Amino acid sequence: MRVILLLILTISISYTYSQDSLLLKPQVANSINELQDFVAIPNDALNANDIQRNLFWLKEKFTQRGFNTAELETENHPLFFATLPMEEGKPTVLIYMHFDGQSVDPGKWNQASPYKTVLKQPIENDFETIPLETLKDSIDYNWRLFGRSTSDDKGPIVMLLNAFDLLKKEGKTLPFNIKVILDGEEEKSSKPLPAAVKEYRELLEADFLLIADGPVHSSAKPTVVYGCRGITTLSLTTYGPVKPQHSGHYGNYAPNPGFQLAQLLASMKDTEGRVTIKGYYDGITISEAEQNILKSVPDSNQAIAEKLQFKSAEKVGSFYQEALQYPSLNIRGLGSGWIGKEARTIVPASATAELDLRLVPESDGNRLKKLVKSHITNQGYHILDHAPTKEERLTHTKIVTVLEGSVTDAFRTDLDNEYGDFLVNTMKQAFNEDVVQIRIMGGTVPIAPFINELQIPAFIVPMVNPDNNQHSPNENLKIGQLAYGIKAFYALLSTTPN
Amino acid sequence: MRVILLLILTISISYTYSQDSLLLKPQVANSINELQDFVAIPNDALNANDIQRNLFWLKEKFTQRGFNTAELETENHPLFFATLPMEEGKPTVLIYMHFDGQSVDPGKWNQASPYKTVLKQPIENDFETIPLETLKDSIDYNWRLFGRSTSDDKGPIVMLLNAFDLLKKEGKTLPFNIKVILDGEEEKSSKPLPAAVKEYRELLEADFLLIADGPVHSSAKPTVVYGCRGITTLSLTTYGPVKPQHSGHYGNYAPNPGFQLAQLLASMKDTEGRVTIKGYYDGITISEAEQNILKSVPDSNQAIAEKLQFKSAEKVGSFYQEALQYPSLNIRGLGSGWIGKEARTIVPASATAELDLRLVPESDGNRLKKLVKSHITNQGYHILDHAPTKEERLTHTKIVTVLEGSVTDAFRTDLDNEYGDFLVNTMKQAFNEDVVQIRIMGGTVPIAPFINELQIPAFIVPMVNPDNNQHSPNENLKIGQLAYGIKAFYALLSTTPN
Repeated sequence: MRVILLLILTISISYTYSQDSLLLKPQVANSINELQDFVAIPNDALNANDIQRNLFWLKEKFTQRGFNTAELETENHPLFFATLPMEEGKPTVLIYMHFDGQSVDPGKWNQASPYKTVLKQPIENDFETIPLETLKDSIDYNWRLFGRSTSDDKGPIVMLLNAFDLLKKEGKTLPFNIKVILDGEEEKSSKPLPAAVKEYRELLEADFLLIADGPVHSSAKPTVVYGCRGITTLSLTTYGPVKPQHSGHYGNYAPNPGFQLAQLLASMKDTEGRVTIKGYYDGITISEAEQNILKSVPDSNQAIAEKLQFKSAEKVGSFYQEALQYPSLNIRGLGSGWIGKEARTIVPASATAELDLRLVPESDGNRLKKLVKSHITNQGYHILDHAPTKEERLTHTKIVTVLEGSVTDAFRTDLDNEYGDFLVNTMKQAFNEDVVQIRIMGGTVPIAPFINELQIPAFIVPMVNPDNNQHSPNENLKIGQLAYGIKAFYALLSTTPN
Repeated sequence: MRVILLLILTISISYTYSQDSLLLKPQVANSINELQDFVAIPNDALNANDIQRNLFWLKEKFTQRGFNTAELETENHPLFFATLPMEEGKPTVLIYMHFDGQSVDPGKWNQASPYKTVLKQPIENDFETIPLETLKDSIDYNWRLFGRSTSDDKGPIVMLLNAFDLLKKEGKTLPFNIKVILDGEEEKSSKPLPAAVKEYRELLEADFLLIADGPVHSSAKPTVVYGCRGITTLSLTTYGPVKPQHSGHYGNYAPNPGFQLAQLLASMKDTEGRVTIKGYYDGITISEAEQNILKSVPDSNQAIAEKLQFKSAEKVGSFYQEALQYPSLNIRGLGSGWIGKEARTIVPASATAELDLRLVPESDGNRLKKLVKSHITNQGYHILDHAPTKEERLTHTKIVTVLEGSVTDAFRTDLDNEYGDFLVNTMKQAFNEDVVQIRIMGGTVPIAPFINELQIPAFIVPMVNPDNNQHSPNENLKIGQLAYGIKAFYALLSTTPN
């Protein structure tokens, strides 16, 4: 059985390849037109009307491809849900993408409107606009489409739609049941998602979750991501005199909140960046097999150092991918008094450090926050959850106000999951290239609670170029990535998992 | 000789006291009118025309009192100089005050104009305006005159003028030669003063310098100040990635500049606020006699702690006055990334600490800065005087940019100086109260270079109330302090030093 399936697989893949110019290219042309239409509908989740117009467009496009569609009501915007008729005995894949985009600041874009797609070709270190009509004569995979959500995340939705066209043209029988869930407020943290998954659990039931969001690895190779770090935050404030004081009159008499804060922070890490708080890295083990996969990621630590311009990285891991397997403790902000030209000769009244803690599945956010707080207490500080009253100030020598942020958990699917193997092998054969396997990404995705709630294996299969200016002005999608995504979805949805 | 002089002294003082209501009170009434006129002339040193109008007023007023006056040209505004005919054999006192005032923000004052004096009487925790005409019927020493420079420093100039009226009315022979130098840009740092003293050294020659600026001790007792701390500054900047990076992607990989800075700062002081940099306190000794004078200052450490709302002061000295005998190391500002609602999940590109170092005569500012820099080098940092280039970033693991501020030296006259004894004893007898002797004030005065250049004993004899809102909106002078100042100048200038 397995042998026969592999044979079919091989034929299917090689067929696609040989037809690349004949079938894929016209499909890419179609997807460019469709993406322009889609981008033309503004999609800021702050505007419910924008979201409604996008939902309308999606309903039409998925219906054309034979899907049944529904709007799933949530506490805010509805989710878009589409499914092909279900067949018993086939595994079900749930595909997650989002159609909302980051808010735009049109003045910062090098084009008339972020919602009016512009075609550009690369010139040395920059891009130059060329007429969209040029596409009628020829399509160059290095050209790019500039516009909000071309990459994040309307492009991948269009890739999926066009993959279905191709599958249909070729009369493919799909080995999967397909469910598609499209989020209308991912860029605004997808707050309604966890409650929605509880409500629509039966509808969303699947064997695995495929998330087509974010860029491929910086090497531009096919990529499968197995997890994302979570996040929580802490804000620490130490206190000097109740109001800023003249540094002549009270310097080296009134307590200095900056020195207190510096001593507190300095005690949390060694000079090479490793957290010294007891238990912070507890529970993290990396097997040899996992270590080998981490090492196989084609990062260049040298290139990162060169790009970010530092000589030595912190020593939490011995290389970049290894560092990401551990929770971080990052000072994202410091403030006390004034700096630069604003500096004035005062003993400031307080000093604040903003910390973020990126989490891995082994490091529960609430546990880590508790460890940090115990550590602070052990340094002789009295912890408050509010600014101290006069009485508290006069009672305790060292006071710190600790404000805790909410916790977004990490998620991580085992590297040896069978659907993970299926994704990696299929992509490898489709593109005839090694697939980059990322055990856990450094960043945090707002759908992590949704993933954890579903309790099914989840994978991010990114479709877009790494240099797409996601979240920024001049967001763009390389046309070659449209072809890549159509081909990736085509391969993934037409290949039978073994 | 000495016995006879002491006898005269005693008579003179007791006479003044008995005449307080007969002669002093009308003089206070006159001084109120004169101060209103003077305050009515705006005196922001940013406006040369203001300064000229004040110089004109001063010339008229000092000429009326028999002074010869001159404008001493400097690289900016002229200094006002006045002297009474010199007599051989008498010691010479040089009196320094300033007639410019801090810039005003009229909207922040509780009166129509900061230059139009308003009379107010105290009511619980506040003041209430009363008509100026009220003064024709009676004068209450608790009433206050509100206006720019009523205290800082036009009030004391008017006190001096009126003290001369009183001395004249009583036909006193002055045991001193008197020179008066009035600064027109003290609030703008008196930049031309050091060069001016070099140019006019002969004219300014004197046996001692008396500075009538600033408020009396917070106990409101008569005060003589023997010195002021100096100041210099350092700005330290540490570096992370060349641009802020996503804290998910690069947290615990890219170096965090906040932790570096915290570790650097934490290494400079112990947890009780004592500087641990080698040699920082070198050369400072306090004799038993000096220690007794420090202890005699009626500070309430408890009251300071209560007012500034902290439980424990730093431990550089065991009490407030002792702490001031040492140089300080103060973090006046910290900045990195953003804090509070602006906080964002980044690894910041840099972190900056602004330090100020208050100096005492034993701690040369350049020596201290060198010690701090050696300490930084010993922590493994490469010091730059500029933001690092890419090459420097890739060459050194730990980089700190150190920017050095200029040095304003401290000044301090010996506590056992004979003119100091004269001032203290005369004030003690004039007011029948112990005189607070401040060995060194915490703050820095811009005339310190001038004092050090003159190389004569210098004393600050403050005349105004401690709660005068100097430098702030609603600056004021207690009318009782006008009487105090006239009496103080009267006693000091009519008493023969023994």
